Amino acid sequence: MDAHRLQTVIADELASRRSELVAIDPRLAAMADLLIEFVVAGGKRLRPEFLWCGWVADPAATNWADDEALHLVGAALELIQACALIHDDVIDRSDSRRGRPSTHRAIAKDHAGAGLAGDPDHYGVSGAVLLGDLALAWADDLYLAGAQAMAGVGRSAQVWRAMRTEVLGGQLLDLLTTALAGADPLTQVSDAMRVNRFKTAAYTVERPLQLGAELAGAPAGTVTALRAYGADVGVAFQLRDDLLGVYGDPLITGKPAGDDLLEGKRTLLLATARAALQGDPALLGELDDGIGRPAGDPVRLAAIIAGTGAVEVVEQQITELLRSGLAALDAVDGAGAPVVSSIARERLAELAHAATARRF
Amino acid sequence: MDAHRLQTVIADELASRRSELVAIDPRLAAMADLLIEFVVAGGKRLRPEFLWCGWVADPAATNWADDEALHLVGAALELIQACALIHDDVIDRSDSRRGRPSTHRAIAKDHAGAGLAGDPDHYGVSGAVLLGDLALAWADDLYLAGAQAMAGVGRSAQVWRAMRTEVLGGQLLDLLTTALAGADPLTQVSDAMRVNRFKTAAYTVERPLQLGAELAGAPAGTVTALRAYGADVGVAFQLRDDLLGVYGDPLITGKPAGDDLLEGKRTLLLATARAALQGDPALLGELDDGIGRPAGDPVRLAAIIAGTGAVEVVEQQITELLRSGLAALDAVDGAGAPVVSSIARERLAELAHAATARRF
Repeated sequence: MDAHRLQTVIADELASRRSELVAIDPRLAAMADLLIEFVVAGGKRLRPEFLWCGWVADPAATNWADDEALHLVGAALELIQACALIHDDVIDRSDSRRGRPSTHRAIAKDHAGAGLAGDPDHYGVSGAVLLGDLALAWADDLYLAGAQAMAGVGRSAQVWRAMRTEVLGGQLLDLLTTALAGADPLTQVSDAMRVNRFKTAAYTVERPLQLGAELAGAPAGTVTALRAYGADVGVAFQLRDDLLGVYGDPLITGKPAGDDLLEGKRTLLLATARAALQGDPALLGELDDGIGRPAGDPVRLAAIIAGTGAVEVVEQQITELLRSGLAALDAVDGAGAPVVSSIARERLAELAHAATARRF
Repeated sequence: MDAHRLQTVIADELASRRSELVAIDPRLAAMADLLIEFVVAGGKRLRPEFLWCGWVADPAATNWADDEALHLVGAALELIQACALIHDDVIDRSDSRRGRPSTHRAIAKDHAGAGLAGDPDHYGVSGAVLLGDLALAWADDLYLAGAQAMAGVGRSAQVWRAMRTEVLGGQLLDLLTTALAGADPLTQVSDAMRVNRFKTAAYTVERPLQLGAELAGAPAGTVTALRAYGADVGVAFQLRDDLLGVYGDPLITGKPAGDDLLEGKRTLLLATARAALQGDPALLGELDDGIGRPAGDPVRLAAIIAGTGAVEVVEQQITELLRSGLAALDAVDGAGAPVVSSIARERLAELAHAATARRF
């Protein structure tokens, strides 16, 4: 997907939404700008990239005339992600995101600065809930506009629907399993994998790929290969993120080192370490006592986890998922012809390597 | 709209969504059930009623074959409302809704009962944010399914889009103006009216009517008359609700008497009372000190407001809005024929009277 063009579409669409809010009341401009800055500054635009790969994956044909409309759907994916991150930061009580104050913190700061009445923190959370809702509603508008322009609503609505239920279901499951802190280690391992599958893999890779492919009218074999890649590579992405959340450079991740540990995030890395520590109740106790405690010592916790060999186990899983995911793209049809176009295969290989490579 | 059929559609659609969540993880059933019970128990189903009135408002024709699909859109409106109420209760820190615990309170209670780790209150808020998001996403799915079945996406998408931006913009404005507690009384009067216009009137009456009319392909004159009715009667509804929030019977409203005062809701009633008290700083100070204080005395505050004559002013506005709204339905076209069908006019008159009648 053309990054500059996506940026233009996002900026134009959000400027038009901003004017709708300002028409309700000019004082809503500041809130609108917070959301717009968040989306425009953006992240890695991974979901639009996968959408585009799905859209060009049919070896037979790509309808390049639909390129403009596809960028609207790409912008829709970025808005879903904005909702997910803004609400996630409320749920995780994160103070920062991408090296800047998280949305609820930024709103709370504006509240205090403007001398408004009431509790700044609650005002921040309230504003962030509503801005996330706006992002979710606008995402649907943009998806519908794009899909309609491609005459692809009938082909793609089921994927759009599944993706949103899966990411929200995955977030609910994440919330629930995080609260099940005392569960046995094997349950935690399978819980972490299930959260990864729905909250990340389906939502970030598998469904955006499928959405692009269905919008382009790709054959079933192409869709199957893309989804297999997405399920594996998507989990690999999350496992790399989990490692970076503990051992990554804050300048690269935009989050304080060890933040995931202090937030109590139930990652596969942590579950694997806990499973390995079953024979060492003292160390397991020290780990459990520190996880999810804002006053904990992340360096010590990271060292305990590394000492169990869990990092190597997770690295090995990343390697294996990367291998199996890329292999899925090599599928051929009954006549021995590739089911995924070479342009899509090349870009998908690049993306898989870039997002699972070590960054520490 | 057939209430039993709407109920069946809501129950069937939500059962299918529940199974999608359970497929992600069976432990999500309890969360799904909380949302389902909330929507199935429901409220007055006002928005589907107005949708139906808009859909039968064209005097020339109604396509009764689309009746099933219209119920899907009706269910979509109820899900938007579920999101709005669940998130509103988080924002207002309301403990109860319709005489039962609010969603975040119910989730917090389940958390404490199940012996989960972490802060039950924050868990409740987190779960309610995500359940509200699910309701919003599912609302879009149902709107799209219904509108597609009527081949009406092109005619109605702009209305669906405007409605969601308006209600969320209205909620943001409500949040902002509530925090501007010290604003001058005249600004507060106009702020309250603006919040009423977008957060309630457009979202509850005007846009659902327009949505139904556009889905049915009604002519522009019909849409204009419906929207004029909706803007006026919608505000009248809110003004009645404001009065009930202070002087209503808790058994009827499902909320403790005076709850709006202790929550600090910036209603037109309150703004009018404050404007009337400009010459009495002692009484104005007493009122301002009590509003938004959970430990305040709602009976005393209600008496201060009533003493200013603000109740009569608001009653008079309700009467006038009801009159002008109903008059808009009597519009005729160039040939002198009514632009709104008699079936729609009759039902809209009933709804307007029912929802603005005194209940105390």
